[in-house]
Formats: sequence, structure tokens, C-alpha cells
Amino acid sequence: MAQNIYDDDEFFAAYSNLRRSIDGLEGAPEWPHLRAMLPNMSGCRVVDLGCGFGWFSRWAAGAGAASVLGIDLSANMLERARADTADARITYRLADLDELDGLDLPPSSFDVAYSSLALHYLADLPRFMTVIGRAVVAGGAFVFSIEHPVYTAPIAPRFVTDDAGQQSWLLDHYSVEGARTTDWLAPGVVKYHRTITTYLSCLQDAGFTLDQFCEWAPRPDEIVEFPELTIELDRPQFLLIGARRT
Amino acid sequence: MAQNIYDDDEFFAAYSNLRRSIDGLEGAPEWPHLRAMLPNMSGCRVVDLGCGFGWFSRWAAGAGAASVLGIDLSANMLERARADTADARITYRLADLDELDGLDLPPSSFDVAYSSLALHYLADLPRFMTVIGRAVVAGGAFVFSIEHPVYTAPIAPRFVTDDAGQQSWLLDHYSVEGARTTDWLAPGVVKYHRTITTYLSCLQDAGFTLDQFCEWAPRPDEIVEFPELTIELDRPQFLLIGARRT
Repeated sequence: MAQNIYDDDEFFAAYSNLRRSIDGLEGAPEWPHLRAMLPNMSGCRVVDLGCGFGWFSRWAAGAGAASVLGIDLSANMLERARADTADARITYRLADLDELDGLDLPPSSFDVAYSSLALHYLADLPRFMTVIGRAVVAGGAFVFSIEHPVYTAPIAPRFVTDDAGQQSWLLDHYSVEGARTTDWLAPGVVKYHRTITTYLSCLQDAGFTLDQFCEWAPRPDEIVEFPELTIELDRPQFLLIGARRT
Repeated sequence: MAQNIYDDDEFFAAYSNLRRSIDGLEGAPEWPHLRAMLPNMSGCRVVDLGCGFGWFSRWAAGAGAASVLGIDLSANMLERARADTADARITYRLADLDELDGLDLPPSSFDVAYSSLALHYLADLPRFMTVIGRAVVAGGAFVFSIEHPVYTAPIAPRFVTDDAGQQSWLLDHYSVEGARTTDWLAPGVVKYHRTITTYLSCLQDAGFTLDQFCEWAPRPDEIVEFPELTIELDRPQFLLIGARRT
């Protein structure tokens, strides 16, 4: 079972103030890279795993998807998603990704599975991947982003600055997988750290072949526009993956 | 052009004293994982890229390879490799991996390409990958290890210890690729840092599909035998990759 931190009032209020919550996909610096990994949406049956406010679900419908199922475990988020959506092709469902099964996502019922920054909340990744591997048709796509394992590994994640002003990310426990409790937006947020090795082997075991792999980093022009992104060059924050069901 | 640090007397003397230089493959903790990624060697034409003392070349011949070409840029290392080898199926050649071309490695002339901890010395990885992609037959394998990008990224690589005794690896400049000069075994050793993203995209561009991906970490029984490996759990030192030519 994943923690439902998005229905915590303090967390939800802080999350709602992030640039990506206010500006949607255009406020997420990794979105252009993730979008480039997606197949043509035209006529596709799409599932948006951890859909949040529904920004991607609406984008997919706008890009021609035949249907979009957005799933999230936060009632807060789905309430706003529904309020912001007026498109009969989009359905939202309240569910914990850690508890999805073949009844929720029938075999070969989707052409595209998508997930943005949700999978690091899941306690049981192999189980989830197996369900998605069955739900996506042969030749279909699974495109997702996660917090990069280098970002989720440390027990007490932080940068330090040396005497010369060089900032470095304190990396430890990379190969020690499991829950990490951090104070991000609110105290006691539980995420699960896994190595890249584990993400890729779970994908492979679920019948996917890796197509695209991108450790997101800001481009020079993005750094000019948002100087606070400079530090992202020191350690990757996001990992974007595109896989194909074989 | 790769730096020929292995023909530096100080470096060579220190390198010769490493456990992996004295005990060969059995002295390299990542070897069992790398071996498990290899196809059956029986009847294969094998190229060992950065063969060093020839430990792998001899192992491959012993495992049934039809022929093995070991390539290294260090005359010191090849001298010892030749002295330690008595097998007509094995040939050693002095060459810089950064300068190999289709004359050195003709198209479709190898079933298995192998490289252990050499590619992070190369200045031009895309060029090298292209040559290997042409030299390996369709269905053939390319199995290699590199220093993990998390290990090669920092400008001044080191662990720090906090007041509670927790050791952390200082990670910075991960997304800033290029040469890194470190004092490993001798001063002024030049290695090239690249992200995992770049390694995987170069492989893909050269016609390979990723089969296996392993960020090496010591097992509990290995830590009991070699307690100095404990720190390897904090940041991965080696990345092992198995790819198939499509």
C-alpha cells in the first residue's frame, strides 16, 4: 500500500503551490523530454498512472487519444481533476497503484501506459509492473518518470558546500533498497528507493524492452531562464524511461 | 586518443599490486556477475577490448572460444599477457581503442565483444561504439563493465564522514560530461565521465539492444569476507552491461 500523502492538508497545500501544479505540464521542466518519448496518441487507449490533477490525461485526450483512464489514490487531487475536465473520453478512478489488478486493468486493454513521478511511492514495484505488462498490448508503450535513484538513495538527502563553494550531493545507501522517510513539503513523506538495476529488471520481467532512457538535466537556455536549476547539473533529479511491450 | 597511463612506471607498479592484477578474474568482485552475462563461448570469435594482462582472453579460450583477439594500448601489459599465454587461439595486438577502425576489426568478424573497465578511458565513445557495432555479427553480444558514472562524475571524488559517522559520496557534475583528472594509483590519470544516458544511447545508435544492466554491489557474504567492501553499498563503483547486436 502506498502512503496517501497527497490527502494530507499540509502536503496538499504545499504541492498545490509548486510550479508544476499551477502551470501544469508546461511548468514541469522534464515534460518536453517525456513528451518526445511518447508515441502518437491518435486513437490510443491511454492509462495515466498517478494522474494527480489530470494535466496529462487532458493533454492525451487533446492529442487524439480514444480514451484516457486517470488513476490516483488522492481524493483531493481527483476532485480538482474532475472539476478541471470536460471531456467524455476521460475517466478518473480512485485507486492505489500498489493494489491495482487485472480487474482494474484488464489484459491488453491499453495502447499506452504513462506515469509521472509516482512509481517511487509504490511499496511493491514488481507486482505493479506485472499488472502493467499484462494491461498493455504487444507493441504498446509504457513511458514514465521517477525520481532518479541517486536522488532517492540517501537516508538524509541534502547538498553540502565545501570551502571553495562547490556544492555536492551526499550520496549514500544507493544499493540498500527500501523505504525512505523525508520531509518534502510535509514531514513524514514515505518514498521507496530502488536502484536503476531494479527498475530495468522489473520492466524486463514484465515483458517490456527498454527503448529510451533519459536522466533529465537542464539545458543551458533553461538555466538562463531558471537559474535555480543550475544545481540539477550536479545530480540528476529525474529519470525518464520509455519501454515497448514485446 | 586515450591516455596510456598503464605504461607509466608508478601507475603500472601500483596497478600490478591490486588484487585483480595478482589473482586475475577471481580477484575482481564484479567478475561473477559479468561472467553470468556472457553467452556460451563455445566456437565464438571473441575480442577483448582493453585486455590488460590477458586474464579474460585466456578464460575465454579455456571456455571454448574459437579465437580471441586481445587489444590493449599498454606495451607493459601486453608483454606480461604474452608471457603468461600459451594458446595459439589467442592473439594480442597493441592498439588504442580510441583509434580502432574497420581495418582492425572487420565487419561481422566477432561473435562476442568484451571489455572490462576500459571504456571510461576513451575520448570518443560514439566512434568506438560504431566500430564495435559493425564488428559484431547480428545476434552477437557486447558485454562490458565501466566505472559507474556516479563514481566518475565528481571533480574531486571522495567520501566524507558526518558527525554521526555516516559516510557519503560527494556527487557533483553528474550531467557535465568530459575529462576528469584524478590521482588514482598515480597522479594525473585521465578518465572520461559520461552519464548512463549517454552509454545507453551510444549502444542503441550502434545497433545494440540492452539485455542486462547491473550496478554491482557486494553481497552480504562478500562483505563478511572483505569488510572493506561495505562502503560500496553507498555508491555503485561498477556498471556492468550486456547488449545484443540486432
